[in-house]
Amino acid sequence: MSSGAREQVQTLLENAGRVLVVAHIEPDGDAIGSALGLAWALRRRGTRVTLACAHPVPASLLFLPGSDAFVARWRQDEDVVVVVDTSDTARIGAIYPDDGRGAAPLVVIDHHITNLRYGDVNWVLERASTCELVLDLISAMGIPLDATIATCLLTGLVTDTRGFRTRSTNADALRAAVTLMEAGASLGDIMEAVFRSRTLPMLRTWGAALSDARLEDGVIWVEVSQEDLRRIGAEPSAADGLSNLLSTVRDAEVAAVFREVRPGVVDVSLRSTPRVDVAAVALSLGGGGHRQAAGCLLEAPLPRAREMVLSALRLAMAEGNGTRMNADRAD
Amino acid sequence: MSSGAREQVQTLLENAGRVLVVAHIEPDGDAIGSALGLAWALRRRGTRVTLACAHPVPASLLFLPGSDAFVARWRQDEDVVVVVDTSDTARIGAIYPDDGRGAAPLVVIDHHITNLRYGDVNWVLERASTCELVLDLISAMGIPLDATIATCLLTGLVTDTRGFRTRSTNADALRAAVTLMEAGASLGDIMEAVFRSRTLPMLRTWGAALSDARLEDGVIWVEVSQEDLRRIGAEPSAADGLSNLLSTVRDAEVAAVFREVRPGVVDVSLRSTPRVDVAAVALSLGGGGHRQAAGCLLEAPLPRAREMVLSALRLAMAEGNGTRMNADRAD
Repeated sequence: MSSGAREQVQTLLENAGRVLVVAHIEPDGDAIGSALGLAWALRRRGTRVTLACAHPVPASLLFLPGSDAFVARWRQDEDVVVVVDTSDTARIGAIYPDDGRGAAPLVVIDHHITNLRYGDVNWVLERASTCELVLDLISAMGIPLDATIATCLLTGLVTDTRGFRTRSTNADALRAAVTLMEAGASLGDIMEAVFRSRTLPMLRTWGAALSDARLEDGVIWVEVSQEDLRRIGAEPSAADGLSNLLSTVRDAEVAAVFREVRPGVVDVSLRSTPRVDVAAVALSLGGGGHRQAAGCLLEAPLPRAREMVLSALRLAMAEGNGTRMNADRAD
Repeated sequence: MSSGAREQVQTLLENAGRVLVVAHIEPDGDAIGSALGLAWALRRRGTRVTLACAHPVPASLLFLPGSDAFVARWRQDEDVVVVVDTSDTARIGAIYPDDGRGAAPLVVIDHHITNLRYGDVNWVLERASTCELVLDLISAMGIPLDATIATCLLTGLVTDTRGFRTRSTNADALRAAVTLMEAGASLGDIMEAVFRSRTLPMLRTWGAALSDARLEDGVIWVEVSQEDLRRIGAEPSAADGLSNLLSTVRDAEVAAVFREVRPGVVDVSLRSTPRVDVAAVALSLGGGGHRQAAGCLLEAPLPRAREMVLSALRLAMAEGNGTRMNADRAD
């Protein structure tokens, strides 16, 4: 059936003169990379392609060719709309029309198995990145890869696997990376563009947080207060990446970053080993995410927010232990 | 000629009943991984293999099968000695005999092109890791890969490329990774074992250093004093990895970590973009290393050591600019 979906996508795109390719809000490398890779490939065969996203492309992705051409609108006269890497219409954001999506066929290409299949054709397959699906599609359509297409697609593969570090990085993902490098993508340039993007205020913010890092009952956590940010002269985004760093601590099963985005509002970022489901914890606090990477936004002073989350985590980890013990018994 | 060297290595190993495989001092993942991968492969065809290293295997590599069996001795009755990943005999360390290496043939397998070719057979090829050479050798010898061999070799490939992030990570390196994953190596397990090895004192040490990070004239630097380490309760090794983190700062061409290993003795770790040669700077101060990753040990108080290095770096970067300008003119 998935292969059927891919063939339907192919037929729709081969018969379209104009295509709108849409990336999700808060776009990441896989959203922008897969949208651009598909756009450049379709243009090679004469299709007119417009790229859309409700939010601006982040600075760290502006090295990608064509990344400055995203517009914040829905379909005008395009024959087909393709939404990439986007599991539900809420993630399309404000450009998604209130009165329905209109007459043109809506194609969804996504690697999130939680995708709500809101398109006319939904090609959803579990892969490390949506870019790998786009690579398969381009190959099926017989469009030759070039360095531009390959750079866009390899960027999405690299970012969605955090540089091949996620558990989703399987042999297929590396095989796709080889294909893209052979087509002219520079892995070194992409790694540098994507990961060499930190700033001095960011590292000083990490310093303030890490100086006071705590580890208790398998949970490592740090706090970034408004006062820290003001003193350092940093934005709240300076704490981005801290939870990934904390999750490299051997003795921690869960990593938590409490970031005071404004007085009385705390952004919570959680990471975990496969044993603990932090998505469930985040959900119970009004947030969401993946089992091993989730978050929520709490309206509470920093100490109160911290205690709420740590209590919920302790409970989840105790339950996790119970589940594991039962599973062990069942073996 | 390189292929000739590989064939000579193969012939020597196929005719040896006993082999000593030697890794370098301060062993890293590529040294231990390539030694173990070769050992397990030779054992599959009945060869008796002993593993040697002058220094203990680091804790982060003890997950590798057989890593607890390294001994600190040179050849006894082995027919052939193979030294892996080791560019000169000084890096073999104290186990290398003062009175010469003895009667058995000495085979050198290494990916450092600076290798001094001190063996009877020297198979030296530029690759991202020595493990890739061992993989080629095993394949040429017709020894089937298994999960044990593959795990050892993929670990070396992953560590020497810092998780596929170095410029040396080419399509061949990723292709080797695919082969090793298909043979049963778990990239996720290796990434976790190798990179999820930090501790709370380590992150607190980073915190103290990063809180006071400085960036001037393209050089970002931090200091780790004996006082910091004492207060936190950390070893000097807690600063390992800090220079790699600093090198992710966009506006820095050079990253420097000044670590007071004992009062009056400062270990300096340097990282740079391709434009700046920090090996030359380290060499001028009695140290050494690679163009983009080097270091030295200075007998001086922390502030004096810092000024010595920063002056040398400023000079090197000014010269680098000059060279580049001349090169630009010559284009």
